[in-house]
Amino acid sequence: LRTGFPEVIWSQGKTPEQIIQIMNAMRSQGTPLIMTTRLESDIAEIVSLGVPDLRYYPLAKIGAIGKIEQKYQGKISILTAGTADLPVAQEAAITAELCGFEVERLWDVGVAGIHRLLNHRHIIDNADVLIVVAGMEGALPSVVAGMAPCPVIAVPTSIGYGTSFGGVAPLLTMLNSCATGMGVVNIDNGFGAAMLAGQILRLANRFTNRKKNPHGR
Amino acid sequence: LRTGFPEVIWSQGKTPEQIIQIMNAMRSQGTPLIMTTRLESDIAEIVSLGVPDLRYYPLAKIGAIGKIEQKYQGKISILTAGTADLPVAQEAAITAELCGFEVERLWDVGVAGIHRLLNHRHIIDNADVLIVVAGMEGALPSVVAGMAPCPVIAVPTSIGYGTSFGGVAPLLTMLNSCATGMGVVNIDNGFGAAMLAGQILRLANRFTNRKKNPHGR
Amino acid sequence: LRTGFPEVIWSQGKTPEQIIQIMNAMRSQGTPLIMTTRLESDIAEIVSLGVPDLRYYPLAKIGAIGKIEQKYQGKISILTAGTADLPVAQEAAITAELCGFEVERLWDVGVAGIHRLLNHRHIIDNADVLIVVAGMEGALPSVVAGMAPCPVIAVPTSIGYGTSFGGVAPLLTMLNSCATGMGVVNIDNGFGAAMLAGQILRLANRFTNRKKNPHGR
Amino acid sequence: LRTGFPEVIWSQGKTPEQIIQIMNAMRSQGTPLIMTTRLESDIAEIVSLGVPDLRYYPLAKIGAIGKIEQKYQGKISILTAGTADLPVAQEAAITAELCGFEVERLWDVGVAGIHRLLNHRHIIDNADVLIVVAGMEGALPSVVAGMAPCPVIAVPTSIGYGTSFGGVAPLLTMLNSCATGMGVVNIDNGFGAAMLAGQILRLANRFTNRKKNPHGR
Amino acid sequence: LRTGFPEVIWSQGKTPEQIIQIMNAMRSQGTPLIMTTRLESDIAEIVSLGVPDLRYYPLAKIGAIGKIEQKYQGKISILTAGTADLPVAQEAAITAELCGFEVERLWDVGVAGIHRLLNHRHIIDNADVLIVVAGMEGALPSVVAGMAPCPVIAVPTSIGYGTSFGGVAPLLTMLNSCATGMGVVNIDNGFGAAMLAGQILRLANRFTNRKKNPHGR
Amino acid sequence: LRTGFPEVIWSQGKTPEQIIQIMNAMRSQGTPLIMTTRLESDIAEIVSLGVPDLRYYPLAKIGAIGKIEQKYQGKISILTAGTADLPVAQEAAITAELCGFEVERLWDVGVAGIHRLLNHRHIIDNADVLIVVAGMEGALPSVVAGMAPCPVIAVPTSIGYGTSFGGVAPLLTMLNSCATGMGVVNIDNGFGAAMLAGQILRLANRFTNRKKNPHGR
Amino acid sequence: LRTGFPEVIWSQGKTPEQIIQIMNAMRSQGTPLIMTTRLESDIAEIVSLGVPDLRYYPLAKIGAIGKIEQKYQGKISILTAGTADLPVAQEAAITAELCGFEVERLWDVGVAGIHRLLNHRHIIDNADVLIVVAGMEGALPSVVAGMAPCPVIAVPTSIGYGTSFGGVAPLLTMLNSCATGMGVVNIDNGFGAAMLAGQILRLANRFTNRKKNPHGR
Amino acid sequence: LRTGFPEVIWSQGKTPEQIIQIMNAMRSQGTPLIMTTRLESDIAEIVSLGVPDLRYYPLAKIGAIGKIEQKYQGKISILTAGTADLPVAQEAAITAELCGFEVERLWDVGVAGIHRLLNHRHIIDNADVLIVVAGMEGALPSVVAGMAPCPVIAVPTSIGYGTSFGGVAPLLTMLNSCATGMGVVNIDNGFGAAMLAGQILRLANRFTNRKKNPHGR
Ligand SMILES: Nc1ncnc2c1ncn2[C@@H]1O[C@H](COP(=O)(O)O)[C@@H](O)[C@H]1O
Ligand SMILES: Nc1ncnc2c1ncn2[C@@H]1O[C@H](COP(=O)(O)O)[C@@H](O)[C@H]1O
Ligand SMILES: Nc1ncnc2c1ncn2[C@@H]1O[C@H](COP(=O)(O)O)[C@@H](O)[C@H]1O
Ligand SMILES: Nc1ncnc2c1ncn2[C@@H]1O[C@H](COP(=O)(O)O)[C@@H](O)[C@H]1O
Ligand SMILES: [Mg+2]
Ligand SMILES: [Mg+2]
Ligand SMILES: [Mg+2]
Ligand SMILES: [Mg+2]
Ligand SMILES: [Mg+2]
Ligand SMILES: [Mg+2]
Ligand SMILES: [Mg+2]
Ligand SMILES: [Mg+2]
Repeated sequence: LRTGFPEVIWSQGKTPEQIIQIMNAMRSQGTPLIMTTRLESDIAEIVSLGVPDLRYYPLAKIGAIGKIEQKYQGKISILTAGTADLPVAQEAAITAELCGFEVERLWDVGVAGIHRLLNHRHIIDNADVLIVVAGMEGALPSVVAGMAPCPVIAVPTSIGYGTSFGGVAPLLTMLNSCATGMGVVNIDNGFGAAMLAGQILRLANRFTNRKKNPHGR
Repeated sequence: LRTGFPEVIWSQGKTPEQIIQIMNAMRSQGTPLIMTTRLESDIAEIVSLGVPDLRYYPLAKIGAIGKIEQKYQGKISILTAGTADLPVAQEAAITAELCGFEVERLWDVGVAGIHRLLNHRHIIDNADVLIVVAGMEGALPSVVAGMAPCPVIAVPTSIGYGTSFGGVAPLLTMLNSCATGMGVVNIDNGFGAAMLAGQILRLANRFTNRKKNPHGR
Repeated sequence: LRTGFPEVIWSQGKTPEQIIQIMNAMRSQGTPLIMTTRLESDIAEIVSLGVPDLRYYPLAKIGAIGKIEQKYQGKISILTAGTADLPVAQEAAITAELCGFEVERLWDVGVAGIHRLLNHRHIIDNADVLIVVAGMEGALPSVVAGMAPCPVIAVPTSIGYGTSFGGVAPLLTMLNSCATGMGVVNIDNGFGAAMLAGQILRLANRFTNRKKNPHGR
Repeated sequence: LRTGFPEVIWSQGKTPEQIIQIMNAMRSQGTPLIMTTRLESDIAEIVSLGVPDLRYYPLAKIGAIGKIEQKYQGKISILTAGTADLPVAQEAAITAELCGFEVERLWDVGVAGIHRLLNHRHIIDNADVLIVVAGMEGALPSVVAGMAPCPVIAVPTSIGYGTSFGGVAPLLTMLNSCATGMGVVNIDNGFGAAMLAGQILRLANRFTNRKKNPHGR
Repeated sequence: LRTGFPEVIWSQGKTPEQIIQIMNAMRSQGTPLIMTTRLESDIAEIVSLGVPDLRYYPLAKIGAIGKIEQKYQGKISILTAGTADLPVAQEAAITAELCGFEVERLWDVGVAGIHRLLNHRHIIDNADVLIVVAGMEGALPSVVAGMAPCPVIAVPTSIGYGTSFGGVAPLLTMLNSCATGMGVVNIDNGFGAAMLAGQILRLANRFTNRKKNPHGR
Repeated sequence: LRTGFPEVIWSQGKTPEQIIQIMNAMRSQGTPLIMTTRLESDIAEIVSLGVPDLRYYPLAKIGAIGKIEQKYQGKISILTAGTADLPVAQEAAITAELCGFEVERLWDVGVAGIHRLLNHRHIIDNADVLIVVAGMEGALPSVVAGMAPCPVIAVPTSIGYGTSFGGVAPLLTMLNSCATGMGVVNIDNGFGAAMLAGQILRLANRFTNRKKNPHGR
Repeated sequence: LRTGFPEVIWSQGKTPEQIIQIMNAMRSQGTPLIMTTRLESDIAEIVSLGVPDLRYYPLAKIGAIGKIEQKYQGKISILTAGTADLPVAQEAAITAELCGFEVERLWDVGVAGIHRLLNHRHIIDNADVLIVVAGMEGALPSVVAGMAPCPVIAVPTSIGYGTSFGGVAPLLTMLNSCATGMGVVNIDNGFGAAMLAGQILRLANRFTNRKKNPHGR
Repeated sequence: LRTGFPEVIWSQGKTPEQIIQIMNAMRSQGTPLIMTTRLESDIAEIVSLGVPDLRYYPLAKIGAIGKIEQKYQGKISILTAGTADLPVAQEAAITAELCGFEVERLWDVGVAGIHRLLNHRHIIDNADVLIVVAGMEGALPSVVAGMAPCPVIAVPTSIGYGTSFGGVAPLLTMLNSCATGMGVVNIDNGFGAAMLAGQILRLANRFTNRKKNPHGR
């Protein structure tokens, strides 16, 4: 249906045997690139017995077989507020790369030290699509969306304690943002953020070679 | 900063006098198009005493002065699950039109009568960006995102009673969607959905006349 | 009291010894069929030492002794949105079979790929009672109830992460459904769904051989 | 689609003009019976200017035009815990009657005075389907389902104060019931309860004149 | 301060060493009876190395040293809805006995089988104080308080799954009870229930040998 | 059933006509004392047209007819944290007086000025039963129960703003109290607190003239 | 007790008569400055009949009589994210001024337009104590506390809609802040923020003329 | 930026290798004092292989290297309600000491035994800044703030069970306090409390040797 993007299996709640079976079935149907998310390293080891060419990305908890068929124009820029948000950011980054996009990473630019973010202003100014990952107070996407001239995808993470309530606090921060041009995905859903960014850039790729609107900017 | 889009005032919690003053100040600074959201009709009437050329959209609760400077390529398609979701959908539609986009409307295609949605499949198939507005169970964006080859923006509404909890139920439905390529905005935030759709299409407009990637689709 | 259905023991929070003792006591009182739910496999192993003819259904986590006395007319059709919902669906299926009903299973027809569901339309069209099991956004029962000319029992599951809140998200989706003819049970309560389906079909069986209302359909 | 039941309009969030227009449109398409729920009395008065034959049920807040085409076998028995639950119970009762069912009413038999319920045991013993409506602690459906040999539909109401949280307390009570054979609908959703009861009895009506299973009871 | 009742140590969050040290310190100050609650069996084993005469009640998770000094008139009657509620009920029972009260136990009389409760009506009719322990829907205290001519203490337990939310569901049921003469304690707080029952009976003991009010009953 | 206490009607959600009808019906059946709670003053005025001897207590929102038949020994002492808690405290006080108990009142002794409470220590020291009413942080019952040698009934009120969440904050404070001998009732439930206090003192009255336990205190 | 600060009456839930009576009683006891918060303008008008010298601050909803006795060193700097937060900020500002502090105001510097805040950096750099008031996403205090070398008091406001949940969203943002040196008060509690700021500066005033620690900075 | 205080690393969610690397990098940049919070003992052991001079405080779960450069005037007084609150209180105490402040500790003075607190009144009367740590009902800060003539920082802890909801109950108690001069930090955030106390005292240190306001106290 959505050709050009990999087929995806959600490993959570599946046995290694089920994952092996689905992967091999998809492969034998000719699927060029198959990825699986939320794949714990111990499960990955068993899966690779039945899928010997499985590539495993431990931080992102993604497994993949096959090769990226198509490269798209445009870049997905991924920011995190803290280093503890890295697993979610990497889930987004690897997904985006497997979908055929260039990825730019900027880690640990949370709002409690706003100067670090301001020092990287050019990354925001020149972005095509931004994925902004943050836990705890989750304020980074608001600040970034206020500065960015492009779509921003906000990903709350479950990083924190006490009243972070497993990611509810940053989720609410992001949904209530005064800044515009921002969409929110589920807590820890780096995969979903990358898929939305991918859809946005794929649309932009479809506009390539259209004749520019003479009255437009 | 975000030239090409109107300047926006959030009327909620402001007096008519404050709104008049801000609108006139912006106008005298040369702002070509100024809009204000969440403007109740009684407030609008007072505001139009001080801003005589105010255009008022009662369903969307939007007021505007000035003219749309720039037309963008691409269309924003807006769907609702029920007729009670119309005010939120219209807030999105008017905002999108004031930002310079063509808008396509499809009302009352909720999932409890899936055939109605399937009868309008071509709208989904040919969309550039979809805004899907739904209250109560809020399942429409999931179904649409599963069918659509483009970005989907999901807007939960506060329509419902009992366990809809003022829009929390559809919000959770949308955040938990198994379908990919979907971003969520705050409850009843038609304005925010349009601004995100606008950013997405503006990005696509920037891609126009770029040379197509020879290895891409 | 409710003769014709098996006696049921809720294993959760009981020791193997207690379960053995209750099962044997019921058997010696002449109970023809005894089942126990939420029986973990390690507990089941110990129980089978004291109840040697225990049949154990690992996916459903049900144990049973004795035989089904009575077959009822009518069929219980069970659908799931994903494969991760299988344990709950199987709890419903095995319970229904032990109660004397025919069961029809249809797995992995979630709304994010609506065509799969539509390909199985005949199952919905010809159902007597439907049990629809879904986690994450939990939208499947709404779509099914909109299509089905029979009672629908919706079962939310705790499958998901982040804002699924252990099944609260699909529960709310189901309670807020715009589709009619639907009743909801507790999160992960496959057993309860089957018991309600059983009561519904038992009522229908009591209507068998009643003279048809001449003015009715 | 679901022939035999009236067409239903949800008045909440609709203007009188919209309701008049939809009712008249449905009537001119030949719909024999049209009802509308959540119709406030002041709106009903305006609607009856455009729909002169509108019958209005003030306690149930239901409006209807046309006549009941078809009578079904079987009876829907409706119980309430308190008198404050009457509006919800009447919404269920009128809906059920408009759908063609006989309705039996038993008000104010809450569990805090269990003897009153026990004095009416025969109503429970002889019911086909039970709708049990309760607010505050919402314990009545549990007790009834433990006694009843038939399906029970539990309706939580928003009656109460403090920790009843607008009906959440009785909703949770009902979802957590130890008694089996019970399905739950949204808070204050008397309409939905009647529609489910209707589907259950319609199924039973379809079983009428089937040949009894020789091995069944 | 509250002489006549044992000194109590809350073991949760304390090391075995701390518990030993506090117990021995209290004993050397002449405290006749010392008890500790929430004492896990593995901790109890270590504690008994330093407190050799420690009596341990495994179901109640209570440890005690010393002897009951004083017997009070009156009886504390403890009921549970299910067998899974036993640990909480036993915490109440052992605490009450250590405080010097006679305890009457009645297990597994939940409302889903109301006849079992009615068969033990005399226990309710003749009670001085009732402690009613229930999880899941938590409806038992309401029914009992409606029948009982004495104070009822309701104890919600964390027994259940899904929407029982760790005891919140039965807690809300109890707080919203239509029956009067009932006080509620924290989830799983059998200890607190016994202490309140103890205070109530101690007050009654203080009334013993007062001259009866000639105008009273 | 619970003779000696007045018959009680909960006015909330009832029409004046219904209240008049129930009151007169009870009176004609010989009920000596009838009271109704949550009776707004405008409803009370209409009710008194049909029940001319209605006594109305505006702060407590209680109406009553008939006379107190029986006086009990013992006193109910009622404390509030603030003056805004008075309506709830008065509901408790008037209920208690109508049930035949002496009432002692102590207002505005909240913990933020602990010296005021300590200045009234003798009231706590000499109490039979204490009802402690508090909103906002709701800490007063904990402090009082730590000092009091008798049962304490804690009543959270909906007084406050922001995170008081309509009484949830003080309710949680009371349920989590480290002090023992305390039972909690629903938010704003002064009536329920008085009924529990009444049951406690009635039990104590039944102990009057029993022979003192020679081994007891 | 806390001399030097005004006596404060919380008007919410008090009648005008009660407020008049308390104010006059305090005045006749010699209290030099009396203020009352949450005083609605219509109540203020009635109060000023009995308290003719009442000064009323309508935006802050504060009434006051008497004069400020004492001026403290140090300044309280108050920032808001939006103009809708002004009533809360003014409650803080007027309270601070009545307590004898100099107040500096900076409105509408929310993080969605971070440049506005950065343009006023000197205010943050030179502050003694900062009160930062924000609704919706409530991210401003985090950014400010990351920049400020002094204590920051964060005040969430109930400004917003949908998932702002009456101020819960900004409250959680503030409690989860990664920036240090920040304390949070209740939603909309401008008064409380000023009182804390006042205590902080009063402590600093007590340090004035202490001899500087030779080893300190 | 905030010179004079140690550099801080939040260990939660970081690998030992990452912690070692960050510590050594900071050290080589000349940072005089580096501390890390939420450092579990097993991680600490590994970290000390790469950072041999690491000092580890097991109760506080803090690791530190380097020496305290600067001593400030003023004292931070830390109180706990129970002994189970000690880990959080020690996190505050060690942080405060590493920041260069004198710390005074008072453990186990919860409000359920108010006399213990009153026996230590002088500690409150003579405090510069108070940090008050409490779980369960969390009432201690309210009582203390009502007595204290200085800023109070309230720290809710996750100690408790049932309706303490992991610290939400004491958090709400603290946010709703009627006492003034109190700021609240996140659940279990002893570190944040100390940093706020540190900022308050550092401000006061800056006031040292300022000339006293002649009209001030
Ligand atoms: N980490 C993830 N979070 C949310 N959805 C996912 C994730 N990974 C995969 N999915 C979705 O789950 C679908 C596959 O689910 P399944 O059929 O259960 O393997 C894919 O089409 C994806 O849309
Ligand atoms: N009170 C009610 N509660 C829930 N759903 C209702 C109610 N009344 C009508 N409905 C449903 O709403 C649908 C009509 O919605 P609408 O198209 O907005 O008028 C009907 O098909 C019913 O299924
Ligand atoms: N299971 C329990 N639940 C609630 N409170 C308890 C429990 N056990 C003991 N307590 C209370 O905790 C106090 C002792 O706490 P601690 O000083 O921490 O040992 C006792 O005075 C009891 O009031
Ligand atoms: N807006 C406010 N929010 C919170 N507490 C307040 C407020 N205004 C006054 N107070 C507190 O309420 C106390 C007075 O309450 P009361 O005795 O009810 O008038 C004062 O001592 C203040 O500490
Ligand atoms: Mg960082
Ligand atoms: Mg519709
Ligand atoms: Mg699937
Ligand atoms: Mg009743
Ligand atoms: Mg049982
Ligand atoms: Mg007061
Ligand atoms: Mg602004
Ligand atoms: Mg203690």
